[in-house]
Amino acid sequence: MTDFGGVLDLKIAYVNATFFTLDKDNLIFENGMMITEDNSISYIGQQLSELIDVEQIVDLKGKWVLPGLVNTHSHILMTLLRGKGDDMLLKPWLETKIWPLEQQYTTEIASVSAQLGILEMLKTGTTTFSDMFNPNGIDSDEIMESILSTGIRGAFSHTIFSMGSQIEQKRNLVEAERFAKKYKRVADGRLTTMVSPHSPYACRTEALLESLRIAKENELMVHTHVSETENEVYEIEKRYGVRPVEYLRSLGIFNQPTIMAHGVVLNDEEREILKHYDVRVAHNPISNLKLGSGIADIVSLLDSGIKVGIATDSVASNNNLDMFEEMRVAALLQKGMYKDATKLPAEKTLALATRIGAEAIGMGNTGSLEVGKKADFITIYPYDKEHLQPISAAYSHLLYAAHGNDICDVYIDGKNIVKDRVCLTIDEEKVIAEANRLQGKLVC
Amino acid sequence: MTDFGGVLDLKIAYVNATFFTLDKDNLIFENGMMITEDNSISYIGQQLSELIDVEQIVDLKGKWVLPGLVNTHSHILMTLLRGKGDDMLLKPWLETKIWPLEQQYTTEIASVSAQLGILEMLKTGTTTFSDMFNPNGIDSDEIMESILSTGIRGAFSHTIFSMGSQIEQKRNLVEAERFAKKYKRVADGRLTTMVSPHSPYACRTEALLESLRIAKENELMVHTHVSETENEVYEIEKRYGVRPVEYLRSLGIFNQPTIMAHGVVLNDEEREILKHYDVRVAHNPISNLKLGSGIADIVSLLDSGIKVGIATDSVASNNNLDMFEEMRVAALLQKGMYKDATKLPAEKTLALATRIGAEAIGMGNTGSLEVGKKADFITIYPYDKEHLQPISAAYSHLLYAAHGNDICDVYIDGKNIVKDRVCLTIDEEKVIAEANRLQGKLVC
Repeated sequence: MTDFGGVLDLKIAYVNATFFTLDKDNLIFENGMMITEDNSISYIGQQLSELIDVEQIVDLKGKWVLPGLVNTHSHILMTLLRGKGDDMLLKPWLETKIWPLEQQYTTEIASVSAQLGILEMLKTGTTTFSDMFNPNGIDSDEIMESILSTGIRGAFSHTIFSMGSQIEQKRNLVEAERFAKKYKRVADGRLTTMVSPHSPYACRTEALLESLRIAKENELMVHTHVSETENEVYEIEKRYGVRPVEYLRSLGIFNQPTIMAHGVVLNDEEREILKHYDVRVAHNPISNLKLGSGIADIVSLLDSGIKVGIATDSVASNNNLDMFEEMRVAALLQKGMYKDATKLPAEKTLALATRIGAEAIGMGNTGSLEVGKKADFITIYPYDKEHLQPISAAYSHLLYAAHGNDICDVYIDGKNIVKDRVCLTIDEEKVIAEANRLQGKLVC
Repeated sequence: MTDFGGVLDLKIAYVNATFFTLDKDNLIFENGMMITEDNSISYIGQQLSELIDVEQIVDLKGKWVLPGLVNTHSHILMTLLRGKGDDMLLKPWLETKIWPLEQQYTTEIASVSAQLGILEMLKTGTTTFSDMFNPNGIDSDEIMESILSTGIRGAFSHTIFSMGSQIEQKRNLVEAERFAKKYKRVADGRLTTMVSPHSPYACRTEALLESLRIAKENELMVHTHVSETENEVYEIEKRYGVRPVEYLRSLGIFNQPTIMAHGVVLNDEEREILKHYDVRVAHNPISNLKLGSGIADIVSLLDSGIKVGIATDSVASNNNLDMFEEMRVAALLQKGMYKDATKLPAEKTLALATRIGAEAIGMGNTGSLEVGKKADFITIYPYDKEHLQPISAAYSHLLYAAHGNDICDVYIDGKNIVKDRVCLTIDEEKVIAEANRLQGKLVC
C-alpha cells in the first residue's frame, strides 16, 4: 500500500496570514507565523524576525488560516445517491430508495462515490472524517486504497449488520474483524478504522457483543447510530424493555471508547450514562431535520460534560458535505430551540467542528493549530468575497457567514492537498465524469 | 436619474441549457430555449429549429437556468454591521450594538453598505429584494440612486419610527411620505417603494394610522415587522389589550396590501385574520433562529392559504444574504419541527423563494420563467461542482445542495448584470475596499 507523496520532512514557515488556532485559549495571531516540521506544527505565534533552518517559506498573502474541519459521521459511499430521494419519511426512504439502490452497488460505484465524497470534503475544508460504510457487494480493500491516495485523515469503518441469512451475518462479522485488524493503523496513523455495529435496531445482541469483542481485542473505538428517532427508542423498548442507551450500556459496549451518531432522543438519565462512560456524540443537525428526526439537545449534552462533534451524515440526507453550513445550522438550532441567542456561541461551535470533534473520534493529534499537533490546516482568502466583509469581523464570519466554497488551500500532514481550489490528489474531472456515468446504473 | 444601461429592445435567444421554469406546473425543459424581447420572456420551451427575427443567440453551454431569487425582507444598509454582534439577546444586541452603530451612520456608510449588500445579493442569485432602511443621518435620494445603478429589481422602503422628539417623529413621517411619492415607480417599475412602519411596538398608533394614509393615497404596499418574538406579543397585549395582529387589523392596516416580516408567534385566530385580509408573510428562518426568536410555523401559514416569501433579514442577524442557504434552512426547519420529512418539499420551497415570494411583495411580473414575465434569471454551471453531482438530480440539488456561490450569470430585465461571477454594475474591488475603510468609523 502506497502513501500519498511519502513522508514529508521539510521545515516550512507559513507567513503573512491571520492564524485562528482554535486552541483552548482561542488564540489568534494576526500577521502571524506557523512552522511545520515532520508533518507537525513546531511553532505558531507572532512572526519571527529570524528563521533558523527553515527550508521553505510559504507566503499566504493575507489569508485566514484555521485547523481543518472534522466531520465526525459520514457515509461517503452513498455520495452517488445524492438527490435520489428527498422529502420522504424514513421508512419508505430506506425501503424504496436507499436500500434497493445500495443493493446495486459494485466496487467501481463505491470507489467513485468515495472519491467524489472526499473531493467535496477536502475542497470545503474537511481534513478529518469518520465514516461508516456498507460493505455489501464491494471490495473494501480497494476502497481503502483509493481513500488513502486522497491524503485525507480519518477512520473508515466496516458496518456490522444483522441482516440476511445466518451465513451472511457470519460472513459480515468475519469480514468486519479482518478489516479492523488490517486497517487499525495505516499511513503512520493518518488512517484508521473503528468497529461499527450499525445500531441497536439493525444488530442483534450477539452482533453487538461480537462488535465489542473485536473492538476490545484490537483496541479500536466503537462507532454506531443511537437514538436517532422516537420510533427507534419505542422499538428498542418494545424489544428489550429498556431504551437504547441503557441497552447498549447493559451489554458493556460503553466500556470501550464509543462515539454514537445522532442522540436526538435522550433524557437526563441517558445523558448521565453517556457522561459516566465518556461516550461521545456526533451531531448531524441537517440530516436530523431533513429526515424529520428532530433537533438534538446539544446544550444539555455539553452541560452534562459530554464531548460532541459536528457531522454531515451522508449526502442522501443532507445533501452536501459542507461543514461550514453544518456547524452554522448546529449553532442556530440551539439558539432557536432554546429561544436564547447566547446558546452555542461561535467559539464553542467552532471548537466542536475542530478540536473537540477530533478528540471525540480519538484523534486529538489534530483539530487545532498548536505545537505538536499534525499540520492539518485550511486557508481562506477573504479580500474578494463580499460575504466576508468587513474583514475585521473575521472570527464571526468563520461561523456565521463563510461557506465551504470559500476554502482556498488545504494541508493535511503538512502536505498541500488542495491548492487554489484545485485538489492535487484526485482527478476532479475524471471523478465527476465517472460519477455521472455510473449513477445511470443505479435505478429505483 | 439614469437607469443602468437604458432600455433593452433586442430579441435574444438563450439556448443549450436546462430551464427550470418554477411556474405553477413546475415545467423543466432540458436542452430548451428561452427568447427574450423588450426585457420580457416571449418564448420558453423546447429548442426551436428555426429562429425568426432573433438578433442574438446566447449559448449557455449546458447551464441550469432558473428564475432569479426573491428576498422578501432585508436591511441592506446594515451590511457593514456584519459580525458586529453575535450570540446576544435581542435587547442588549439592539441597545449596545445595532442602535449605537446606526447612530453613527452617514450617507457614505449607508451607500457602501447598500452597494455591498446588493453585490452579495446579485452574486448569489437574488434578482428582486424588498428592503426597509433606517433613514437617520442619510440622504435617501443618494442611496436610491446608487441602488438604481446596480440593476436590481425591488422595493426600497423608508422606515417610520416613533422615536425621538415630537419634531423628529413629524420629520420622519414627512420624509417617509416624500420618499413614497417620489419612488412609487422608478425605471419602468423595476424599483418601487413601500410604506414601512417599523412595527406595532416601535410605532405609536398615530404613526401607524399615518402610514396607512400614505400607503392608501399612493397605492403602495405596507411592509412591517410583526410577531417576531413572544416578548413583542406580550408587550403589545399589555399596551393595547390585544395581540399585534388584532391591533393592526383594528387600525385598518390590513385593508391595504401588507407584507409582514417574521410571524413567528401566531395562533390559529391570527392566521385566519391574515388569510382574510391577504396579508403576506416574509419568513426569515435564519435570523429568527440566530436572535433566539424561534421557528415560524410555515406549514400552518401555507395550509391557511397565506402567501409566504423567504427572506434573509439583515446580515447583522444572519450573517449572509445567500437565499439558497435560506430556503434550504426554511424547508429543513419545518421537517424537523413537525418530525415529518414530507413537510415543505423542494417544489414548494423553491416556489416560495421565487414565484410566490414575488407575488407576496406585489411583483408577480417576475419569479418564474413564463411568457410575459420579466427576463430575470440566473444560471449555474454544474459540471465542475462536486456538490452538484450526479447532475441528473439537478432539481433536488437546487434546494438541498446548491450555494449562492454556484451562481454563474445573473440577468435582470433582460440585462446581463453578473457574468461569470463578475458583477458588471458594481465596482467590486472598490466597494470592498470602501467597506473596510468605513467600518473602522463604526465603533461600539
